[in-house]
Amino acid sequence: MTPDRAAVCDLLAEYGALIDLGQLDEWLDLFTEECRYQILPRENYDGGLPAALVFCDSRAMLEDRIRALREANKYNIHTDRHVIGLPRILDGGLELEAPFAVYQTDQEGETRLFATGLYRDRLDISGPRLKIRDKLVLLDTFAVPSLLATPL
Amino acid sequence: MTPDRAAVCDLLAEYGALIDLGQLDEWLDLFTEECRYQILPRENYDGGLPAALVFCDSRAMLEDRIRALREANKYNIHTDRHVIGLPRILDGGLELEAPFAVYQTDQEGETRLFATGLYRDRLDISGPRLKIRDKLVLLDTFAVPSLLATPL
Amino acid sequence: MTPDRAAVCDLLAEYGALIDLGQLDEWLDLFTEECRYQILPRENYDGGLPAALVFCDSRAMLEDRIRALREANKYNIHTDRHVIGLPRILDGGLELEAPFAVYQTDQEGETRLFATGLYRDRLDISGPRLKIRDKLVLLDTFAVPSLLATPL
Repeated sequence: MTPDRAAVCDLLAEYGALIDLGQLDEWLDLFTEECRYQILPRENYDGGLPAALVFCDSRAMLEDRIRALREANKYNIHTDRHVIGLPRILDGGLELEAPFAVYQTDQEGETRLFATGLYRDRLDISGPRLKIRDKLVLLDTFAVPSLLATPL
Repeated sequence: MTPDRAAVCDLLAEYGALIDLGQLDEWLDLFTEECRYQILPRENYDGGLPAALVFCDSRAMLEDRIRALREANKYNIHTDRHVIGLPRILDGGLELEAPFAVYQTDQEGETRLFATGLYRDRLDISGPRLKIRDKLVLLDTFAVPSLLATPL
Repeated sequence: MTPDRAAVCDLLAEYGALIDLGQLDEWLDLFTEECRYQILPRENYDGGLPAALVFCDSRAMLEDRIRALREANKYNIHTDRHVIGLPRILDGGLELEAPFAVYQTDQEGETRLFATGLYRDRLDISGPRLKIRDKLVLLDTFAVPSLLATPL
């Protein structure tokens, strides 16, 4: 089956919602077993520099990363909100690009823009459910001190 | 009929646009006669505290509320812009969740982030048009002085 | 053919992505040969004042404008990110309205909200691909010094 716009939107909506709800196990399950997840400053990417802020090339590695973030998060209490814009569907539905803005709210209830960027996902259509095989998070914002408090 | 992604997106787009245009009578008409509309700080919701910032359990009550806001708005002149992200469609299309960011622009033309949050809507599919039966606005941002100048 | 929600979303996603990628030739190609592109402060529009910030009534004129912006941009280096919200589809698919937020990131990697507004597009369905015939960018934010560094 070729994923259509609705299936791609479902996946992206799920992706953002699960991070915001803190349901990171369900979030992990959006990736295939063999997967890659990278966060790269857009600047590096455009300049051909491969230096990633986060680089995980298996789900186990991503899981470890998430566990570490959860630990770190105990001292940086905030909530996230992902607003994901309309996606572009490429390569007959096997790839997507979607712009995003992530907001964080602190314990005083103040919300600020945390980061913007672009998702570029390679999808897996072999199973009954659309999954992410390779996710590249191109990050516009790199002047972020508390960068990796949660996945992006 | 079961609402599909397109119908849900239509409803949400309409919802945000009508507030931003100030067409609040048309906005009210997106709700069923018997409806509920609540704004709840996410913090309260997560903590199991039911204290709502706004609680209307009929369209008449919502209408009263809107009239009061219009009156109050004469002294707080600004325009709104709702950017609603990709929705999650749940329970076979009877429920939706959608993240949002609301921006306000003042009379000097300066725009700032007003609030972010999540819509959680229970839909009514009994009529010819999809309507909102129960809307919960989970508000991330609660450090907002001029909070209820317009509906969210 | 009448454009459906998917085709309209494709066009909008393409529109934002091509600006953000700096692919302005491809962006121009989203417009019909005979086209109109205007940026109008919402305030002027609501007040019935026709004074546009940008007014191009042919693709050639839009092309000239883009060339000038590219020149100017050499001294104002930043990247853009368009987050376009759910569109409203009007007039049987011949018109769309979509809210947007544009963010800019400077060379230090700091991202800030640049502007919000509403697209109101008249579409052309005569060719094999959906195109823009008349685009009105209603700009909420008019307190913007570096306004026209890129198209909106």
